[in-house]
Amino acid sequence: MSVTAPQGFRASGVVAGIRTGAGPDLALVVNDGPRHAAAGVFTRNQVKAAPVLWSEQVLATGKLRAVVLNAGNANACTGPEGFQTAHATAEKAAELLGCGAIEVAVCSTGLIGSQLPRENVLDGVAAAHAALGADAAAGLAAATAVMTTDTVAKEAAHTDVAGWSIGGFTKGAGMIAPSMATMLTVIATDAVLDAPALDAALRPAVRVSFDRLDIDGCMSTNDTVLLLASGASGVVPDAEAFGAAVTDLCKDLARQMQADAEGVTKRITINVTGAADEDDAVTVARTVARDSLVKTALFGSDPNWGRIAAAVGYSDAAVDPDRIDVTINGVLLCQGGVAAGDRSAADLKGADVLVEIALGLGDGAAEILTTDLSHGYVEENSAYSS
Amino acid sequence: MSVTAPQGFRASGVVAGIRTGAGPDLALVVNDGPRHAAAGVFTRNQVKAAPVLWSEQVLATGKLRAVVLNAGNANACTGPEGFQTAHATAEKAAELLGCGAIEVAVCSTGLIGSQLPRENVLDGVAAAHAALGADAAAGLAAATAVMTTDTVAKEAAHTDVAGWSIGGFTKGAGMIAPSMATMLTVIATDAVLDAPALDAALRPAVRVSFDRLDIDGCMSTNDTVLLLASGASGVVPDAEAFGAAVTDLCKDLARQMQADAEGVTKRITINVTGAADEDDAVTVARTVARDSLVKTALFGSDPNWGRIAAAVGYSDAAVDPDRIDVTINGVLLCQGGVAAGDRSAADLKGADVLVEIALGLGDGAAEILTTDLSHGYVEENSAYSS
Repeated sequence: MSVTAPQGFRASGVVAGIRTGAGPDLALVVNDGPRHAAAGVFTRNQVKAAPVLWSEQVLATGKLRAVVLNAGNANACTGPEGFQTAHATAEKAAELLGCGAIEVAVCSTGLIGSQLPRENVLDGVAAAHAALGADAAAGLAAATAVMTTDTVAKEAAHTDVAGWSIGGFTKGAGMIAPSMATMLTVIATDAVLDAPALDAALRPAVRVSFDRLDIDGCMSTNDTVLLLASGASGVVPDAEAFGAAVTDLCKDLARQMQADAEGVTKRITINVTGAADEDDAVTVARTVARDSLVKTALFGSDPNWGRIAAAVGYSDAAVDPDRIDVTINGVLLCQGGVAAGDRSAADLKGADVLVEIALGLGDGAAEILTTDLSHGYVEENSAYSS
Repeated sequence: MSVTAPQGFRASGVVAGIRTGAGPDLALVVNDGPRHAAAGVFTRNQVKAAPVLWSEQVLATGKLRAVVLNAGNANACTGPEGFQTAHATAEKAAELLGCGAIEVAVCSTGLIGSQLPRENVLDGVAAAHAALGADAAAGLAAATAVMTTDTVAKEAAHTDVAGWSIGGFTKGAGMIAPSMATMLTVIATDAVLDAPALDAALRPAVRVSFDRLDIDGCMSTNDTVLLLASGASGVVPDAEAFGAAVTDLCKDLARQMQADAEGVTKRITINVTGAADEDDAVTVARTVARDSLVKTALFGSDPNWGRIAAAVGYSDAAVDPDRIDVTINGVLLCQGGVAAGDRSAADLKGADVLVEIALGLGDGAAEILTTDLSHGYVEENSAYSS
């Protein structure tokens, strides 16, 4: 179950002929209310795709009736014509739903720099409107239509004992970096919450989930995470419980993205403790997660802690070279900055690798999820224009 | 001709049994004077190898009689024992040359985290001392002994019409990043110059040469560039001419490193103009140079300017998305942030790729040299522990 798990939501996914090849490529998510509160988090890239520029305006109202998403074309670097296409897409959905265009967000993902075929999109919106459903299959259809190099649809849902539900889907399998990715995420809830409450739950959740997933250090022009609340359950949730549910859901979706990242053979967790503060812990973990020499060593199942120590050293965080401990899959390999134990004791043959780095300076801790740098990554990103 | 091109220098390269497999792995460069002025630039990595910690102390005196270099082991993350090995190495050379240990710098490159076999190194220093020569073959022997994954020795030399000469060698083929690389460079001159004059020539030269070479964003624990002056020509050079010669030599060596980088199939130059200032230009060029999606696209000979625009956008520099122009191999593909011209007109089949990015904001300009991200890079760095 995904975005249709909560009451008050319908979804669909259809073939609009935007992407190369067959397959669905346009999704619609509709909030049937009675409430239409919403919050959003967008890419920090200075080059923002047209749908991001449009949807940022929409979300400024704190109200959202529907979301149109497409795969196959990012509608980025497309100038005024691209913005008009995003606007026309929202107008088309609004006309069908009997609301204003300013109540419809638009998300795109795919190739940067070519115009989105407007007529295909508008026809696709009409087809998606006709195909709307409130069951699990409808949610899955929407989650499937936004896939690019993803190999599986990514959904999650949770029903709280207090009587409200939350569910959503995400896409993204590469170009995933600080402040999200080529990722589009739509999360729905039937809890009774206003826009500021949704925003207060969503921002910290994104910060410790999607923002801590760093596949290749590349930040997209299109990243969007939306949270919509219908209020259809009639239940006002406990703020803390709701925040925890949003965070858990985002972390679940982020782990699914990590597992499906382009060319991945290892799911790597970089866990940093003992940093001066949390920011420093994130900086160290992210630097190690992005280091090409670390990523290729782990692809080769080589517990090369020296490359990890070198990456810790060139991070912008405060570190004491004589206090660095590095543990890989439970085996302490570097203690106080020098070799400890037997490298061959660290078994990296499995798909999961846990790198623990203790800095011995303070209480700052953070975890970054990443993957190895494999032949598959090179193949996928050199053979395929995206 | 290389480090032995100027008068007053001898060099050698011998087999010391440090690296796995056969081949020379220890080099010695001696300045026979009459002067012994020197300057050095070292890695900014907070995790510094023992030879860097030692040599930084040596260079603080502004005087250098000799340099011992080894390949096969970085002597990094080796604690007090590693530092004692670096010190003992300098003492051994000093004893043979009749000078103080504080006049001998030590450089190492290779695997991080294992102790350098001290006896092999000390025996190697004795053998290298016995093998010293002042001809081109001796310089080449030294340049060859420091190679790791390098496939060719890298040398350059220049004789000035004013009567002084300069020459040097470098090694480094990966882990090359901001503030240099796993690179060791020794440059010699017979000009009459004191340590502050050498320092004043070397720092700006490194800043626009080795610091502008960014293969994989990884900064080494061992990077060292040394400049030694014997004064043997008896000529005091024009400061500007000498500075230009050092810069040209460093740029020549940096281009040789780019051409020999691990797994390289494309030599890529990222040229940024129109930035608010030079720092911003470097930031943009470096961000694009490091972007895995850009590097894999160029490996695939795909002029994917959209990925370049996205990387420009997430750099920390000031950019206006509506003013970005991107030209690849002379073909304008993006103008004012949107598609311009025909992608297929940009021919990327050759080994050289020039990416020109114009930001339209100011006069800041900079160039970064990099390479593509290929199967060869992944293969070399996953199959080989370094």
